[in-house]
Amino acid sequence: MGMVGGGEGAFIGAIHRIAARMDGEIELVCGAFSRDAERSKAFGESLYFEQNRCYPNYHAMFEMEGQKPSQERMDMVAIVTPNHLHFPVAKMALEHGFHVLCDKPATLDLAEAITLRQLVDKTGLLYGLTHTYTGYPLIKEARHRVIAGQLGQIRKVVVEYPQGWLADKHSEQSKQASWRLDPAQAGLSGCMADIGVHGANLAEYVTGLKISEVCADLSTAFDDRMLDDDGTVLMRFNSGARGVLMASQVCVGEENNLKLRVYGEFASIEWSQMAPNDLWMKYADRPTELIRTGVGSMAANTLANIRTPAGHPEGYLEAFANIYRNFAHLIQARIASKPASQASLDVPGIDEAIRGMAFIENVVAASRSELKWHPFRVELDSE
Amino acid sequence: MGMVGGGEGAFIGAIHRIAARMDGEIELVCGAFSRDAERSKAFGESLYFEQNRCYPNYHAMFEMEGQKPSQERMDMVAIVTPNHLHFPVAKMALEHGFHVLCDKPATLDLAEAITLRQLVDKTGLLYGLTHTYTGYPLIKEARHRVIAGQLGQIRKVVVEYPQGWLADKHSEQSKQASWRLDPAQAGLSGCMADIGVHGANLAEYVTGLKISEVCADLSTAFDDRMLDDDGTVLMRFNSGARGVLMASQVCVGEENNLKLRVYGEFASIEWSQMAPNDLWMKYADRPTELIRTGVGSMAANTLANIRTPAGHPEGYLEAFANIYRNFAHLIQARIASKPASQASLDVPGIDEAIRGMAFIENVVAASRSELKWHPFRVELDSE
Amino acid sequence: MGMVGGGEGAFIGAIHRIAARMDGEIELVCGAFSRDAERSKAFGESLYFEQNRCYPNYHAMFEMEGQKPSQERMDMVAIVTPNHLHFPVAKMALEHGFHVLCDKPATLDLAEAITLRQLVDKTGLLYGLTHTYTGYPLIKEARHRVIAGQLGQIRKVVVEYPQGWLADKHSEQSKQASWRLDPAQAGLSGCMADIGVHGANLAEYVTGLKISEVCADLSTAFDDRMLDDDGTVLMRFNSGARGVLMASQVCVGEENNLKLRVYGEFASIEWSQMAPNDLWMKYADRPTELIRTGVGSMAANTLANIRTPAGHPEGYLEAFANIYRNFAHLIQARIASKPASQASLDVPGIDEAIRGMAFIENVVAASRSELKWHPFRVELDSE
Amino acid sequence: MGMVGGGEGAFIGAIHRIAARMDGEIELVCGAFSRDAERSKAFGESLYFEQNRCYPNYHAMFEMEGQKPSQERMDMVAIVTPNHLHFPVAKMALEHGFHVLCDKPATLDLAEAITLRQLVDKTGLLYGLTHTYTGYPLIKEARHRVIAGQLGQIRKVVVEYPQGWLADKHSEQSKQASWRLDPAQAGLSGCMADIGVHGANLAEYVTGLKISEVCADLSTAFDDRMLDDDGTVLMRFNSGARGVLMASQVCVGEENNLKLRVYGEFASIEWSQMAPNDLWMKYADRPTELIRTGVGSMAANTLANIRTPAGHPEGYLEAFANIYRNFAHLIQARIASKPASQASLDVPGIDEAIRGMAFIENVVAASRSELKWHPFRVELDSE
Repeated sequence: MGMVGGGEGAFIGAIHRIAARMDGEIELVCGAFSRDAERSKAFGESLYFEQNRCYPNYHAMFEMEGQKPSQERMDMVAIVTPNHLHFPVAKMALEHGFHVLCDKPATLDLAEAITLRQLVDKTGLLYGLTHTYTGYPLIKEARHRVIAGQLGQIRKVVVEYPQGWLADKHSEQSKQASWRLDPAQAGLSGCMADIGVHGANLAEYVTGLKISEVCADLSTAFDDRMLDDDGTVLMRFNSGARGVLMASQVCVGEENNLKLRVYGEFASIEWSQMAPNDLWMKYADRPTELIRTGVGSMAANTLANIRTPAGHPEGYLEAFANIYRNFAHLIQARIASKPASQASLDVPGIDEAIRGMAFIENVVAASRSELKWHPFRVELDSE
Repeated sequence: MGMVGGGEGAFIGAIHRIAARMDGEIELVCGAFSRDAERSKAFGESLYFEQNRCYPNYHAMFEMEGQKPSQERMDMVAIVTPNHLHFPVAKMALEHGFHVLCDKPATLDLAEAITLRQLVDKTGLLYGLTHTYTGYPLIKEARHRVIAGQLGQIRKVVVEYPQGWLADKHSEQSKQASWRLDPAQAGLSGCMADIGVHGANLAEYVTGLKISEVCADLSTAFDDRMLDDDGTVLMRFNSGARGVLMASQVCVGEENNLKLRVYGEFASIEWSQMAPNDLWMKYADRPTELIRTGVGSMAANTLANIRTPAGHPEGYLEAFANIYRNFAHLIQARIASKPASQASLDVPGIDEAIRGMAFIENVVAASRSELKWHPFRVELDSE
Repeated sequence: MGMVGGGEGAFIGAIHRIAARMDGEIELVCGAFSRDAERSKAFGESLYFEQNRCYPNYHAMFEMEGQKPSQERMDMVAIVTPNHLHFPVAKMALEHGFHVLCDKPATLDLAEAITLRQLVDKTGLLYGLTHTYTGYPLIKEARHRVIAGQLGQIRKVVVEYPQGWLADKHSEQSKQASWRLDPAQAGLSGCMADIGVHGANLAEYVTGLKISEVCADLSTAFDDRMLDDDGTVLMRFNSGARGVLMASQVCVGEENNLKLRVYGEFASIEWSQMAPNDLWMKYADRPTELIRTGVGSMAANTLANIRTPAGHPEGYLEAFANIYRNFAHLIQARIASKPASQASLDVPGIDEAIRGMAFIENVVAASRSELKWHPFRVELDSE
Repeated sequence: MGMVGGGEGAFIGAIHRIAARMDGEIELVCGAFSRDAERSKAFGESLYFEQNRCYPNYHAMFEMEGQKPSQERMDMVAIVTPNHLHFPVAKMALEHGFHVLCDKPATLDLAEAITLRQLVDKTGLLYGLTHTYTGYPLIKEARHRVIAGQLGQIRKVVVEYPQGWLADKHSEQSKQASWRLDPAQAGLSGCMADIGVHGANLAEYVTGLKISEVCADLSTAFDDRMLDDDGTVLMRFNSGARGVLMASQVCVGEENNLKLRVYGEFASIEWSQMAPNDLWMKYADRPTELIRTGVGSMAANTLANIRTPAGHPEGYLEAFANIYRNFAHLIQARIASKPASQASLDVPGIDEAIRGMAFIENVVAASRSELKWHPFRVELDSE
């Protein structure tokens, strides 16, 4: 595997590398980590790469790796740059024959995502998107139970993702903040593109429903902040179910307090990312259950994504690693011309890329509208 | 004290009586408990009332009690009937010279509430409204901290109140449900009038802000249910702060899961009714604090509303009793021509009655509107 | 009802009065609240008693009340004095024909408790002991489930009760502390007599087992403190089950953190006084259940001891009130010559008084012993 | 790195491999995974080792690796066999010049541990012991705070580790259980050697105190079970502090519910392995604090052991990986002749090996004694 972006000081790059390494299925062999050629190469060396695979930039990486024999070259690339580079890097990777695993949001806007889908379709290569939270085993269990009908008809979905890291002006100086608040690098939206999109993805993943209408109220805590840092979205799903999505980066004292609640006709489910090994299932007529991986029956896809016995907590890095390992299995199956496992087919891909970019665009449009409801569109106006 | 409503099988009547008794400041001496005169009298007897104060109906009660000398007659009446009787009973009580403590919502509609305010103003009698949750000591502490500026400018208020007791059709048969789902007895709204109004009251009480605009999405889980059983309201406050209010009676497995979060510039506060002796205060730069009544400095008004040392949990009945005791102290101060204590002045009254009825009407109107934002109006159209 | 002790500044007296009042079954009509006759009378007046029932001391109270006709005099007395007065007051009450409800520990030592039992047996009067924690509905549910065999053979009982209020020297000055640390008023033990005895009672109540051997390590945080303020007790029960009891008054920051765990062959139960409306039931082969009073089947005795729907928390005062109300029902049944209800028979009584005093004496003896195990004896040496 | 033990189906081997891989500082290059030579080699192949480094047994591995030039051969060996092989494998590794990282307990008995210390001293090689729970960042923070005096004099330590996986007879059939219940493979003790020793280590690590006396009550749930599966230990520390340690494998429904409480003169600390990213600090006179890595000041050694921002949970595998990475840094510093970092010096080593084996032997002896207190000895009788 090669990596683009994620050099020194980039939080998410280090996370991706840990996730890739954890299961021993992926070897990170090369990378282009910085816009500065010297820093890019130096960082590669710090990761013990061979000298000639410490590339000065991603163009060189794709060029050089593409010329190696298939046994020697990298199979895939992980893209962990700021948003505006996701598309050009992914495009070049696909054009050079590499599978792509990209951080979210997939692109800078929906138009790019649609073009990307055409490229993926055309090349036949694999494309994965790191919607990390879908990697948690109990989220997979929740999805299994909802899809299996254990909750009955879904009535309401509540997803919230409050953070506090952009709560004051001073916070804007950090490396993480600077590009996320810059429309040129982040796109149309700040908070919704960074974390709201995770919430929407989680809601659709767990329920199997699709958002069909939105009503949104986005805001910024400071007048000179150019992108939203807080927002609430009312949702209607294609089944008639309703939903609420709250996301914020200015809720003082909140860390990554992502929570999901799905209320059904017969039962309800609740999950919180900060206690990810607990899944709560509530019923009308019997005690609430605390579902954990150690007891009772679990879906096969849940069990395929755990590494420790219940009671030895797994966390964020393991959820991330599940996506990497499952994507690696997808590639292995492709290489071996074997059918992919259920777990590996569960990696978010190009469809989620489209949904995510559509979510961002629709929510921004809905927030600007004076009308309450805005239809959720996944095509461009010109189409 | 006398009581109207709340006879056999009425959950809330028993609660009011416990609350009234708890501190030994109020004696329940008479009542009219049922539309059926015989059942009304029998119920009074079961409470050990004197025979001639077991009234057949409230008209008789006000008539007879009104004729007693002031030393002997009841001072106040508690109204715990279905909503549609709140206004006529309160009106008659005031007209006969009795102070009124009424269950919420105050009336059937905003027009009645406005008329009621005129009556209260005219008679100079005391009027209290049992917005129970404001009786919790740590809610008073939260209010104190917000008003004292410890959170800085308020940015966002999130209040949610999910219940599940009306989640299935069968549930409609219960005594509690039958009148709450009947527009003639409950008014314009089901869920919003029953519990949403508590949420709105709590948000305004704790922050001292006023809702100025709403965007609402109300719904019912069953086509033939005549009033809303679920809804989400986006709010804007007069300070520019934003808010979200979620209330539901069809969230399977939820009990009375009222939660309040107030996010400020410097700190945030979180409180949950189901663990009411914990108040969480979160900061940007130091550890989250678990505020409990046993340690650290507390507002005088908090301390005036606790009965046990921290660690011996107080609950719903004590919160309710705080309202009764504080209202009793208000009456005592009036009788003694002394200034009322801070705690007793803290009882919700006619202003909260108006705000609550306005909340219900505005939210229902907003839900019907195609426009996103609906201004929060507290006057009638004709005014 | 009359009351002895519990005047101004005595925390537990106010608690008993609230508990007695809550359900409207008991009227507090007289009392002797202080060693100082004037203060005793003044306190009675502050409670709105008739002038001539504000007694200067308990001797006068029993004398005068004893002379009234049975319809007019108090039926029972609540004893809330320091420990050393429990026995003489109870004795005099019984000798004057009054039922007794006494705070724990029942007496100053086991010898007194044995004498008290003889008196109770001889007079045929009712004797209750306020082991408050047995008044919690979910403790009754836990007992029901254990006794019904739902956990199978019990293997292990863990009960802990850490407090921190005596953690520093300064704390010794408080009114609560001064007598509790004085052997003349408190008896042989400090911490074990004050709260350890609650833990032992809870363990025996819930499991139906009897402690048969103890190994104890009691200590004091300060050299000049005359009674234990901390201790751990290993226990063996008559069934062969094992147990651990930890109690402390010097665990900084702990409030009333009483917790009980009962581990059985098939299932386990966990309950915490600070979240008393939750009962956790754990299984080997299916998810942990959160038992709450609102859903699923509950024992009749559980349901008889709740006042609010699940989700509206009940607390310490309600648990206390359950003991008062159940004891009142016991008296009412006696007066009416009717069989007592299951709930009223559930009030801790003279047997629990004996077990509690034996617990204190045995634990103190065990702590002094160099041998590991000390047999749990309920008779005096001379017997 | 090479590995001995931990082949197919061995839970702990897979854990060690993930921990070793996570930070990219260690490469697993060879191993001897099974007593069966063919299975051992096959397992090595499944891990993508070079053919000639898939060894049939550990003798061959040490022999062959020992003959390689220092640049090519493994630096260290991880030992993850059943207990009885820990010593002979470690001995052979040290004798062939390899650093050793061994699972706990270090040896089969104290005598072996003492011999091992002589070997470590003699060879000057590095020896680490995977007391995993000391790898958690907030345990390091707790230690820092205790040692820095923030709690004042320590009064009491409570550590508990209930599990339920051996609660029924049927459970004895599992691969994990079979050797843990066999004295020949597990040693003198079952539960105390498997998890009690973790608790004792944690208590000493966090407080810096040493256990000086013990009183123990060990038991088995089934008559024919040869080693303890449950036990409680009263402890006295060298400072005079007291402690309680509870460990069990037969508490139905418990997973790995390790909890530590340290009560000091001024403050107290509480930590639970199942919510390892929360550290609670309680005070006498101000609110309880929830310490998390994202806010407030943290010890340098805490920060050196975290990988994600607070709110993205880290768990058991990361704690394990901290031990591996810190041990790798220790080796790197040795190779580079540089001073080791504070974090790397924090790896449990041969002293903890001695303390752990002494704990097991002393507790077993104490349990058999009729006397209450048993002195904690770290030398053999013959010494």
